[in-house]
Amino acid sequence: LKSSLFFNISDRRRFLTGMAATGAVALFGLPELGKGAAFAQEAGGEPVVVPDTEEQRIADLISCNHVMFDLGLADAMGHPSVRSKNNPSHYYMAQSIATGLVSRDDIVELDENSKKVGPAHMREHGERFIHGEIYRVRPDVQAVVHCHTPEVIPFGVTGTPMRPLLHMAGFLVDGAPVFDVREVKDNGGHDGMLVENTELGRACAQKLGKSAVVLMRGHGMSTVGATVQQATARAWYTYVNAVIALDTQRLGGKPIIINEAEALGRRPGRLPERNWPLWKARADARSARYIEEYKKTGVVPMPPRSSLRE
Amino acid sequence: LKSSLFFNISDRRRFLTGMAATGAVALFGLPELGKGAAFAQEAGGEPVVVPDTEEQRIADLISCNHVMFDLGLADAMGHPSVRSKNNPSHYYMAQSIATGLVSRDDIVELDENSKKVGPAHMREHGERFIHGEIYRVRPDVQAVVHCHTPEVIPFGVTGTPMRPLLHMAGFLVDGAPVFDVREVKDNGGHDGMLVENTELGRACAQKLGKSAVVLMRGHGMSTVGATVQQATARAWYTYVNAVIALDTQRLGGKPIIINEAEALGRRPGRLPERNWPLWKARADARSARYIEEYKKTGVVPMPPRSSLRE
Amino acid sequence: LKSSLFFNISDRRRFLTGMAATGAVALFGLPELGKGAAFAQEAGGEPVVVPDTEEQRIADLISCNHVMFDLGLADAMGHPSVRSKNNPSHYYMAQSIATGLVSRDDIVELDENSKKVGPAHMREHGERFIHGEIYRVRPDVQAVVHCHTPEVIPFGVTGTPMRPLLHMAGFLVDGAPVFDVREVKDNGGHDGMLVENTELGRACAQKLGKSAVVLMRGHGMSTVGATVQQATARAWYTYVNAVIALDTQRLGGKPIIINEAEALGRRPGRLPERNWPLWKARADARSARYIEEYKKTGVVPMPPRSSLRE
Amino acid sequence: LKSSLFFNISDRRRFLTGMAATGAVALFGLPELGKGAAFAQEAGGEPVVVPDTEEQRIADLISCNHVMFDLGLADAMGHPSVRSKNNPSHYYMAQSIATGLVSRDDIVELDENSKKVGPAHMREHGERFIHGEIYRVRPDVQAVVHCHTPEVIPFGVTGTPMRPLLHMAGFLVDGAPVFDVREVKDNGGHDGMLVENTELGRACAQKLGKSAVVLMRGHGMSTVGATVQQATARAWYTYVNAVIALDTQRLGGKPIIINEAEALGRRPGRLPERNWPLWKARADARSARYIEEYKKTGVVPMPPRSSLRE
Repeated sequence: LKSSLFFNISDRRRFLTGMAATGAVALFGLPELGKGAAFAQEAGGEPVVVPDTEEQRIADLISCNHVMFDLGLADAMGHPSVRSKNNPSHYYMAQSIATGLVSRDDIVELDENSKKVGPAHMREHGERFIHGEIYRVRPDVQAVVHCHTPEVIPFGVTGTPMRPLLHMAGFLVDGAPVFDVREVKDNGGHDGMLVENTELGRACAQKLGKSAVVLMRGHGMSTVGATVQQATARAWYTYVNAVIALDTQRLGGKPIIINEAEALGRRPGRLPERNWPLWKARADARSARYIEEYKKTGVVPMPPRSSLRE
Repeated sequence: LKSSLFFNISDRRRFLTGMAATGAVALFGLPELGKGAAFAQEAGGEPVVVPDTEEQRIADLISCNHVMFDLGLADAMGHPSVRSKNNPSHYYMAQSIATGLVSRDDIVELDENSKKVGPAHMREHGERFIHGEIYRVRPDVQAVVHCHTPEVIPFGVTGTPMRPLLHMAGFLVDGAPVFDVREVKDNGGHDGMLVENTELGRACAQKLGKSAVVLMRGHGMSTVGATVQQATARAWYTYVNAVIALDTQRLGGKPIIINEAEALGRRPGRLPERNWPLWKARADARSARYIEEYKKTGVVPMPPRSSLRE
Repeated sequence: LKSSLFFNISDRRRFLTGMAATGAVALFGLPELGKGAAFAQEAGGEPVVVPDTEEQRIADLISCNHVMFDLGLADAMGHPSVRSKNNPSHYYMAQSIATGLVSRDDIVELDENSKKVGPAHMREHGERFIHGEIYRVRPDVQAVVHCHTPEVIPFGVTGTPMRPLLHMAGFLVDGAPVFDVREVKDNGGHDGMLVENTELGRACAQKLGKSAVVLMRGHGMSTVGATVQQATARAWYTYVNAVIALDTQRLGGKPIIINEAEALGRRPGRLPERNWPLWKARADARSARYIEEYKKTGVVPMPPRSSLRE
Repeated sequence: LKSSLFFNISDRRRFLTGMAATGAVALFGLPELGKGAAFAQEAGGEPVVVPDTEEQRIADLISCNHVMFDLGLADAMGHPSVRSKNNPSHYYMAQSIATGLVSRDDIVELDENSKKVGPAHMREHGERFIHGEIYRVRPDVQAVVHCHTPEVIPFGVTGTPMRPLLHMAGFLVDGAPVFDVREVKDNGGHDGMLVENTELGRACAQKLGKSAVVLMRGHGMSTVGATVQQATARAWYTYVNAVIALDTQRLGGKPIIINEAEALGRRPGRLPERNWPLWKARADARSARYIEEYKKTGVVPMPPRSSLRE
């Protein structure tokens, strides 16, 4: 994180201009820039803004891996990615390693066909096609989070619609379609449940459509965002909303669903800002300890390649 | 906390007189002082009492932020406040920052209209109006806790009454009314689900009425107390009671609800005393580490102001 | 723990004789000594036995306080006790302080009427009568654990019988009667839900009868044991059994209940031995940190006596 | 772990040849070696492979004990084992001690009849017969994990079939038969619920059959694997699948079960690789602290042998 550049501004116009100049708009996802500016006019203080650089995106990606494990979104499995800023048809992911152990040395660059650019000695994730095919059809998406959070699975396997019950999950008004690998006709001859080729990745991206999250039957979910932070927060609040929906089912009665107008206040670009610094601080510190312990044993037992299919 | 003053007393009359003199009554909320005094007559020992000073209130507010995160009442979001002792129409909150990261440098003073008094460079919470409007109509309230605890949400979205099943949640005999932002006619033109202006804050405070807690549909809850400790404990036991109620629903049968006479032993002023020192010790220690880690990175990535709406 | 004495034996006969001589039988609760001896004959190795001294009982009591918090049986509230070995009509508890913060300095001695023997400056728990009245009518009981574990409450408030579904909860074949404070005719004029006088304590002990656990409606549970370890493990496995019973309810169908013959292998004296050293190691270490933090602030904010009713 | 040998290879043919030479095939369980090789052909990089030695198996066994506690599969009880590589009719387990406290000094060797080979002073687990009788009839099994995870119990006590809902639990397509000690005719005269003799062990192994997991009514589960890592991951994903199945029940509707073709991608040899290094790093570090604390008190209170029945 040392290589990142930061700047302070107190003038809001200069601030927003500066954002556009440095690409911070893309980083934080501000489709409603006008509205944001209007709001900013009413506020005061001196925001600290992180410019949107290649290294900052990678730093966020590493922290996201840690946060996913620390929040329990991932039990060790799962993988996030971030689009390259310098070469927007490419993206970055960790190599095939547990989320909580990812460090700068594990980052892989992939091209528009999810083919590894490098480093040569790394093993990329078999399911990178989820990420690559979403980036292809969703230019607004800068980050993808894929995980297997248990509480979300029941919605995928029963087809019960996941509808927003919490303001923080307002993005669910756009729906959470269910991708079922069993229904994919053109699967490139792949069996099993993993999205391990272009055909399955494409089908998954199509199912996602314009939504913020796609549920995957018997598998998990993938969320997208204008930033790593937003994709992470969307995975978290999809999980929280699932817990609430399951408990609501228990209470009985007809729940009041959050509607389009209500959700507006929670749309792209405004979700994760307050959570992230705390989530990151705790998760990075804990992962630092796991990584230290992991390296302590000299060489960590690693199964043969043939076992590393997923 | 160094700036706090403490004193020991062994004589109970002197103790209660001392309390009144230093304002400890206000701090610990003793509406039934006579009863308390009678009880105190039967007890022995040397209590240590914290005088109710402005700085002690702020110290409690900071710890409350940490406790909310540490107990899982808040996932990082949420915000407590405390009424100013020196200027009771004003109150204090943290600026817009995650609960677990709050330190003395983050405290904002707000006036009777929830307008920031200072410091000038800080960003206040958009939902400060929940707090300000409750202080306006409830002079007995010295502290407010607002959070999004998932297990509480199902009661708000289904309208199932939250009734007390545990002695520690006896305060729920006064009811837990549901505030639904959708039903507010005079909303000052605000859309979305957040209580971000005076009109919505007023409606929320009216819904609370004389209760200890107001549920907020699709959003969370706000609890009040005669002290920060009490408002915190009420949020905790509303959560615990929600868990019990959900599980009771599963078992079936008609549960025995705690009645007015039974709840009396759990009313204002007597809740949080034994929990607080442990909750505070653990949460403050952990937050100290998060804050250390958070500051370690030099400047923490912070999104532009326009993203900081809630 | 330094003051405890330990001894090693390899001869099983000498071991069991030694136990009787030092009182270890009482400590570890071996009603079926003959069976135990027969089993021991078949085994080998060198057990380390802790003699049953006054200080060892108090050390176990302190660790039990920590374990209750660390396992989540207590949210800070709750209180265990142990019978005095030297004066079996007396017993020990912590003063009125959160479980996770208890240290040697907090231990109070109470007499057969739950009147404090000393130290003079300490505040005893209002609900000590639960403990004192059980010790009066159950000479086999050496320890009592009282807590408010949420998952157990639904059984008390609905009257659904808690029946054993897990071998570790085999002690539930003796039943888990429900004490309801509302049903006590001779309550000494006490209102509220707390067991704060002899009359209510007596009614609670009568409801317990010969069982290992008494559920308390809208309040929690109290478990008993031949040792502190056993009373703790019974609270833990009553909790685990409650979780299993709630989930079993969800699955539907008629569950197979553990019967008398099956439970025999889990009866008094054999429960907690393997769990305790790990539970204790983790909990004592964590509590040491909480206590350190708690004392760091100089004087810990403590509410006036009149607030310390429960 | 210092005594382990590792080697790096970049040539995949040499790698697979090397594996066979060192026994790594047995360690990581590669029944579909051809398929694995084919996959490996497509991949790149330099895997680090741990040869399958006696000491590496024991090291994995120790870590497995820690992981079981750290993941909450075990509350302290439970026990894993690993088959001896040098003498495949023998196997290793910890002595009768809590999972989270196991160190190299606690390892016991048992023969084909589950009779202790040594060390002489150690107390073996009463339920070692679960392990020994599975090894006898399942030569493909190199490791067994036995635990009491609460969420799994409802399936055993109600007979509701546990069917795979998550890809990671694809091994459940082979079924999860329920062993009920009550139904065993030839039980060697043993009462209670514990599998403490050859007859009960044999009945349990017969019920397991060719499956990956056997549920044990009112008791828990036992899972098997081609490696310690796989048996651990199967216990974990049986637990996760149980949570998903319970929640799915709540949602209602008819869930889509993972079928044979879909499960294929998750079959023997491919499960635990990515999780293990993180699970191990965190669990070993934590257990190191528990063990340190446990030894700090000089001698840890240990009940008499007769209490150590299970």
